[in-house]
Amino acid sequence: MKHLLSIADLDKDEIIGLLDEADTFRDALKDREVKKLPTLRGRTIYTLFYENSTRTRASFETAGKWMSADVINLSASSSSVKKGESLRDTALTLSSLGADSIIIRHPSSGAAQQVANWVAPNGDGPSVINAGDGSHQHPTQALLDAMTIRQRLGITAGDFAGLKVKIVGDCLHSRVVRSNVDLLTALGAEVTLVAPPTLLPFGVETWPVKTSVNFDAEIAEADVVMMLRVQQERMNGGFFPSHREYATLFGLSKQRAALMKKDAIIMHPGPMLRGMEINYAVADLDQTAILQQVNNGVHLRMAVLFTLIANSGFAEEHAQGA
Amino acid sequence: MKHLLSIADLDKDEIIGLLDEADTFRDALKDREVKKLPTLRGRTIYTLFYENSTRTRASFETAGKWMSADVINLSASSSSVKKGESLRDTALTLSSLGADSIIIRHPSSGAAQQVANWVAPNGDGPSVINAGDGSHQHPTQALLDAMTIRQRLGITAGDFAGLKVKIVGDCLHSRVVRSNVDLLTALGAEVTLVAPPTLLPFGVETWPVKTSVNFDAEIAEADVVMMLRVQQERMNGGFFPSHREYATLFGLSKQRAALMKKDAIIMHPGPMLRGMEINYAVADLDQTAILQQVNNGVHLRMAVLFTLIANSGFAEEHAQGA
Amino acid sequence: MKHLLSIADLDKDEIIGLLDEADTFRDALKDREVKKLPTLRGRTIYTLFYENSTRTRASFETAGKWMSADVINLSASSSSVKKGESLRDTALTLSSLGADSIIIRHPSSGAAQQVANWVAPNGDGPSVINAGDGSHQHPTQALLDAMTIRQRLGITAGDFAGLKVKIVGDCLHSRVVRSNVDLLTALGAEVTLVAPPTLLPFGVETWPVKTSVNFDAEIAEADVVMMLRVQQERMNGGFFPSHREYATLFGLSKQRAALMKKDAIIMHPGPMLRGMEINYAVADLDQTAILQQVNNGVHLRMAVLFTLIANSGFAEEHAQGA
Repeated sequence: MKHLLSIADLDKDEIIGLLDEADTFRDALKDREVKKLPTLRGRTIYTLFYENSTRTRASFETAGKWMSADVINLSASSSSVKKGESLRDTALTLSSLGADSIIIRHPSSGAAQQVANWVAPNGDGPSVINAGDGSHQHPTQALLDAMTIRQRLGITAGDFAGLKVKIVGDCLHSRVVRSNVDLLTALGAEVTLVAPPTLLPFGVETWPVKTSVNFDAEIAEADVVMMLRVQQERMNGGFFPSHREYATLFGLSKQRAALMKKDAIIMHPGPMLRGMEINYAVADLDQTAILQQVNNGVHLRMAVLFTLIANSGFAEEHAQGA
Repeated sequence: MKHLLSIADLDKDEIIGLLDEADTFRDALKDREVKKLPTLRGRTIYTLFYENSTRTRASFETAGKWMSADVINLSASSSSVKKGESLRDTALTLSSLGADSIIIRHPSSGAAQQVANWVAPNGDGPSVINAGDGSHQHPTQALLDAMTIRQRLGITAGDFAGLKVKIVGDCLHSRVVRSNVDLLTALGAEVTLVAPPTLLPFGVETWPVKTSVNFDAEIAEADVVMMLRVQQERMNGGFFPSHREYATLFGLSKQRAALMKKDAIIMHPGPMLRGMEINYAVADLDQTAILQQVNNGVHLRMAVLFTLIANSGFAEEHAQGA
Repeated sequence: MKHLLSIADLDKDEIIGLLDEADTFRDALKDREVKKLPTLRGRTIYTLFYENSTRTRASFETAGKWMSADVINLSASSSSVKKGESLRDTALTLSSLGADSIIIRHPSSGAAQQVANWVAPNGDGPSVINAGDGSHQHPTQALLDAMTIRQRLGITAGDFAGLKVKIVGDCLHSRVVRSNVDLLTALGAEVTLVAPPTLLPFGVETWPVKTSVNFDAEIAEADVVMMLRVQQERMNGGFFPSHREYATLFGLSKQRAALMKKDAIIMHPGPMLRGMEINYAVADLDQTAILQQVNNGVHLRMAVLFTLIANSGFAEEHAQGA
């Protein structure tokens, strides 16, 4: 595996391999007083974020530092982008600085793939990790979601067959929904998108999912309820229901949460708008796995970084020691 | 000690303990060619700053890195705050990422206490350090001020009895004044706030301090003159004297500095507005301890971080070696 | 060598010494699986950038981290500058925090020299590195350019005698041109500034260079064509030719590139505006050394940091090991 650009690029074995690797890192660190592995010592990781982020950038930075990599942050607001430099030249600059990995978040769908084409045209440049590109993909989010589902529902390997997952809300603008649909259906889950027709993705009829506008009916049979953030910054007016309609029809209220099966779980990729997508108190229920998702994210990203850039004799040899 | 939220939470022994610990770090590093201790290796510290800062954030980051911690910076301008996430959810996210400590600066008084309640409801989450919350507290500033006073005046332990400290200027908006009054009076110092009545804190009559509008009279008997920054960003018009009046009545001019006792010292928490609170040349007098305050700040924050988060067998065991 | 403020401060031997040191670092890291030297362990470097930057700040941060230094970033947008602190007080603060080096970029010519005077009045404070001050100097850029010229043209030591270098474009606002003229002429190169008269520096008639407005004539005899960025942010209207005129007369088009000698090289300090200073495709020709410049920059900055701040028994002793 050279890059991680889209879940669609991964086969079932690769997905399960990453999830297992993440579990291994999680278990390995759990017993350590000192959360620091030498695995990526001497590796250089640049985060290149063209959109704001707390959890994703900090999660990758944490993952890299826990494996002793050098992590260097660049944000669009303080970079040469302001001077008119193209994304291609910025990416090639990071590559020439000595990047082992470039972790990019960008408002344009396809940006991560483009960067990978530019910096590693023959497969020999830095590994590119897509940390969210427009409304397209956010593969580490889908992977950490699957990691969390496995933990909470006691699933081994990739046996998601028959699992009923309801993804609820603004599916149109969400990169999380595309990555999750790719991953969950690859593992055999039955995915339903619960959204107003105006917030369903174009071409959803060709996706391997069902759609519904009836949240009450869907939630009763769900094993996993995955709430989405309302991405108001990507709305351009027009089709969106009012906030009140949205919260009423597609928000996870106390009443709706009470309809859930006892062992079903609630997920949200964050940041949450409590009172909008999810009731304030519901977000703190025991059935909620939101903070577990955050915690798993670090270990999942350690697994991704390890898989992509620790592919050398040295790193493997030293991965065991402290 | 789990958190450091307010000087009011500390008793006299805890204050002296932190000051002594800071001196120990200072002396230990003085003789080292390599300023790097392994004390906090594998510990993860997040700085979460909702207000601009140079010295405080950089001082904490330096302290953490000199003890080999991983330090990850988050600022409000590039974080999920922009997407509407609540402070509570941001704090819980950092906790779930694996924070050993969250260092927070926030414009609202009480924010640090709130974060501590959220992330460590049962005393088992990350340690929260208040790096300034609104007009409320800035405990590490008061501690580094006391550390500096001890050094400059040759005071041992906490014997501040009879020490005359004049805190001058905008006491209304200053968190430094609250923390310093708590600390200095706990150690027995006699504190006078020298300020126009419009810039005295509400309820100051219940504080264990004297107040005065006569800077000339107070400065002659001072052992310590502590100038405050005029916090124009917290003024909302109305009561403030003009810049010229302020500088004339409450600025530390050359003439006033000449009234001081020979061994009295001048302090300022920074950033200074030379020509406003303090005369340009006075800020560079030998009596001035301003840069010593900055230098002590790093060692003091090492002591705080060590006390709060190095509480494990490993860290203690390895604290001696390099 | 205490600071690196201007190429004009260096004699020929010092220039060649830094270039040789940079080659040594480059060769040393080439064969290492783990790009990490212990050379600057326990050294603290602050980057203080008052202007946006990707490559320069990231390059210095990479160089410092590859030598195990602690690197702490400060930018004007989130610092005490916003609260009215003077550059002098900010610099003295960083010095008091424990800086071994302060790397500064500032819009005012002479700022780096000022900082050096302030923080090291007797030569005993931190080492200041000028990462670009207004239209004045950018010494590490000139050094990495010379490093690249040596590599590409097979020049040993400082034997630039007879080398024909054409520096093209906005010479008026460029700090790169001043540093490069100083360095290249010190090593014996023949430098021609190719620019409209309105974009030549004031007093250029006293510089040891020729000037020309005829790019076509100059390019045919060039060994090195050094394109400059059009610094629109420093233009204040008036004298500038139109974008179209500029691109036509002073842009490096395909037709012009075809006039070059086969073994001549094209350089650009970045960020480039393709289509303005340089044709889109020309920037990717084999004759172009732009990404090699970026790559050399890291090793050159390692050499500078090493020379300035690793001047202790410990660091030298340990520089060999890993």
